[in-house]
Amino acid sequence: MTKQLKRRRFIETSAKGLAAAGILTASSCTTGNKEEMGSLFLHHVFFWLKEPVTAEVRSKFESALRELITVETIVSYHLGIPASTGRDVIDGSYTYSLFTTFRNKEDQDIYQTHPTHLKFIEDCSTLWERVVVYDTVSI
Amino acid sequence: MTKQLKRRRFIETSAKGLAAAGILTASSCTTGNKEEMGSLFLHHVFFWLKEPVTAEVRSKFESALRELITVETIVSYHLGIPASTGRDVIDGSYTYSLFTTFRNKEDQDIYQTHPTHLKFIEDCSTLWERVVVYDTVSI
Repeated sequence: MTKQLKRRRFIETSAKGLAAAGILTASSCTTGNKEEMGSLFLHHVFFWLKEPVTAEVRSKFESALRELITVETIVSYHLGIPASTGRDVIDGSYTYSLFTTFRNKEDQDIYQTHPTHLKFIEDCSTLWERVVVYDTVSI
Repeated sequence: MTKQLKRRRFIETSAKGLAAAGILTASSCTTGNKEEMGSLFLHHVFFWLKEPVTAEVRSKFESALRELITVETIVSYHLGIPASTGRDVIDGSYTYSLFTTFRNKEDQDIYQTHPTHLKFIEDCSTLWERVVVYDTVSI
């Protein structure tokens, strides 16, 4: 067995092991170069915070986001701000992006009424002036 | 060693193996219950296709999307349509969602001028009436 083939066999065995353990799944991770998130429910939220967006406001909001993403039904998440790109079609006017994925709509429904989510809204809704949500299922 | 401990050791070894092989990375997958996509560059595109959006148009556009996501620098992707959710803050008016992630802005720049991306624009730009892009980096 060549070194390369050995490496590939090890990778395949490792991936199978993780898949068997329910950790590496088709919906959340693959062993290829590219990950297909096909079966996931995407929930992408953009927040426009009220001016002035001070360092204190940012600190409070970011802490609240980090607490929010502890909700159990979230599969993966990304807390973000606009990138430094600027073509005509790009909307970079938002203050924060909250990207989350769920296994399905039911898990996202659980998140919507989860105490942690309700607390986030209660604590932070006075901070934003606009919120836009995109919920997406795979084609 | 208990069966449970053995299982955990196997999972850890498998994960380390994949990480060493450059396949399982902190930015794209973790062995926990929740995946943190922290270091990735998100590029989320929403398309509003011109009416009437016939089955033929959908077929053509979906084929073009599937070709588009073969660009090498894409780390993960999701091709979607609006979910059946309908709260006030949700914008479910778009026709298609194209969610892609990249390791960094440079990899996304490569995608922007990639022949496959340019061909997608050439073939499909007459199909849409509006495109909105959100580029996001982690906080």
